[in-house]
Amino acid sequence: MTVMEIAALPAVVHIREVGPRDGLQNEPVILSTAQKVKLIDLLSATGLQAIEVGAFVRPQQVPQMADTEAVFAGITRRPGVVYSAIAPNVIGARRAIAAGADVVQVFLSASESHNRSNVNMSIEQSLAQVAEMAALVHGAGKPFDAVLSVAFGCPFEGDVPVERVLDLCQRLLDLGAEQLTLGDTTGMAHPLLVQEVVRAFRARFPRQPLRLHLHSARGAGLANLLAGLQLGVDLFDSSIGGIGGCPFAPGAPGNLCTEDVVHLLHEMGINTGLNLPALMATARELERMLGHEVPGQTIKAGICKHLRDREPAL
Amino acid sequence: MTVMEIAALPAVVHIREVGPRDGLQNEPVILSTAQKVKLIDLLSATGLQAIEVGAFVRPQQVPQMADTEAVFAGITRRPGVVYSAIAPNVIGARRAIAAGADVVQVFLSASESHNRSNVNMSIEQSLAQVAEMAALVHGAGKPFDAVLSVAFGCPFEGDVPVERVLDLCQRLLDLGAEQLTLGDTTGMAHPLLVQEVVRAFRARFPRQPLRLHLHSARGAGLANLLAGLQLGVDLFDSSIGGIGGCPFAPGAPGNLCTEDVVHLLHEMGINTGLNLPALMATARELERMLGHEVPGQTIKAGICKHLRDREPAL
Repeated sequence: MTVMEIAALPAVVHIREVGPRDGLQNEPVILSTAQKVKLIDLLSATGLQAIEVGAFVRPQQVPQMADTEAVFAGITRRPGVVYSAIAPNVIGARRAIAAGADVVQVFLSASESHNRSNVNMSIEQSLAQVAEMAALVHGAGKPFDAVLSVAFGCPFEGDVPVERVLDLCQRLLDLGAEQLTLGDTTGMAHPLLVQEVVRAFRARFPRQPLRLHLHSARGAGLANLLAGLQLGVDLFDSSIGGIGGCPFAPGAPGNLCTEDVVHLLHEMGINTGLNLPALMATARELERMLGHEVPGQTIKAGICKHLRDREPAL
Repeated sequence: MTVMEIAALPAVVHIREVGPRDGLQNEPVILSTAQKVKLIDLLSATGLQAIEVGAFVRPQQVPQMADTEAVFAGITRRPGVVYSAIAPNVIGARRAIAAGADVVQVFLSASESHNRSNVNMSIEQSLAQVAEMAALVHGAGKPFDAVLSVAFGCPFEGDVPVERVLDLCQRLLDLGAEQLTLGDTTGMAHPLLVQEVVRAFRARFPRQPLRLHLHSARGAGLANLLAGLQLGVDLFDSSIGGIGGCPFAPGAPGNLCTEDVVHLLHEMGINTGLNLPALMATARELERMLGHEVPGQTIKAGICKHLRDREPAL
């Protein structure tokens, strides 16, 4: 395949901020609960409508997420913002509901080895939890979403057949999941693969919204985002400062960086509803919290001169 | 404009390696002549057919380029490899010819303020040198090329009108330049702008090959490359390890990283003729020479598993 498809680019893109969860969980520096609360409150002030607050997993597995209940209790809820959490199983879903997550998202992997490495269950064991999780979450009156990790390739197994990805999406939908996210958990996608998977997803689930969670392990994250945009994808995950990756995937730096994504989208005339200077200030505050530079490039280079006048003052 | 155009992607892309010039000139660490020679000889062993060896500028302005004559004298010429140099004026062109450059490339900027900052001349003063440079270089039986810097935006002036870019291209061609390169010197391009400029260039110069010299100041370098690929552009500059930028442009990190570009192209099934593991080994050797990490991401993440088996062993 040597031709990339193109549709009208979306006029509006909705970003879900995953820095407090997918970003921080891969950080060696453990932030205090107060720092996480401050980070999330800064993020909700930038115009973000969706923020992944944390994960309800075993603290021994991901120490950075041990205080997710306390983080939920500490944040100031801004009207209109959806504060979500991820959970791998029924226990996690119960904790997420009790903590007050607006949306609970299950995560499982499209490859057996990654799922086992990530949550110590087979894919079938994970799926066996999903029906009960969906019932619990829906019973609490909240949306139940799912993310399918390593949907563009597995660091252990290599290629992941698109048919398997779609079959797992079908299972998740049948079991009660609403919004689906396909994760390029370790940055193995490339533009043609993004388009192949998105096209196949659209063909199989024509009315189902699709969110992409891309990583930029080899610098191609924004090229992959562009490939998705060109097929009209308008839901993306990204991480403030570009922090984080998958703690159980070897050699996997590089969430998409929120402010780099927003800079690119605004340059292209695509509306995000986000305040870019406020995002950049938040990324700088995050650097102070972590005590080191973050990978994002826009905070180093600054807002491009021909975009600067169109952005709000901080 | 909300639609991106698409043509068949090129089957083959030709990379010109600019690390020894555009990369190193922005490095605070000055390499020895022997190190530069070693770097270039490693690069020519990776399959690269075009390497920018250095610049014939005033040593006080760019100390890293002070020994370009000696570098040319030291390298082992690999048959089929074009070893080029850049020069801003007649004096530089004379030095380049004497040093044995295979191709001499003049550089000037599409904005007055950048040209003055970069070479301390007005654009007209630069152009006044070009005719004599072309005659000199052609008289020596060598090709004479030109790069137009800040063609996608100027850090001092902001937008650079496409018409001005095209008019300057016309002047350069009329004065004897053969291949033209449009430079996004400080990383101000975005995919729609890349396509706008490429389309306009093609409309005005339908038979003229076009090379893009992109930077990735805000993370969007490979997205911009993809936008060019989609219009069939098959000539790109990149820098081993992603080192370098423009020493006279504020906030301008980020040449495209050669091994990241090649990783992306190979993932997309586009042939470069380059040995990716050898490029990565060269980037690591460059890190040892410089004594610090380089920005390239592929050497950190490794070759993607589903590409690994298709690449040659080192």
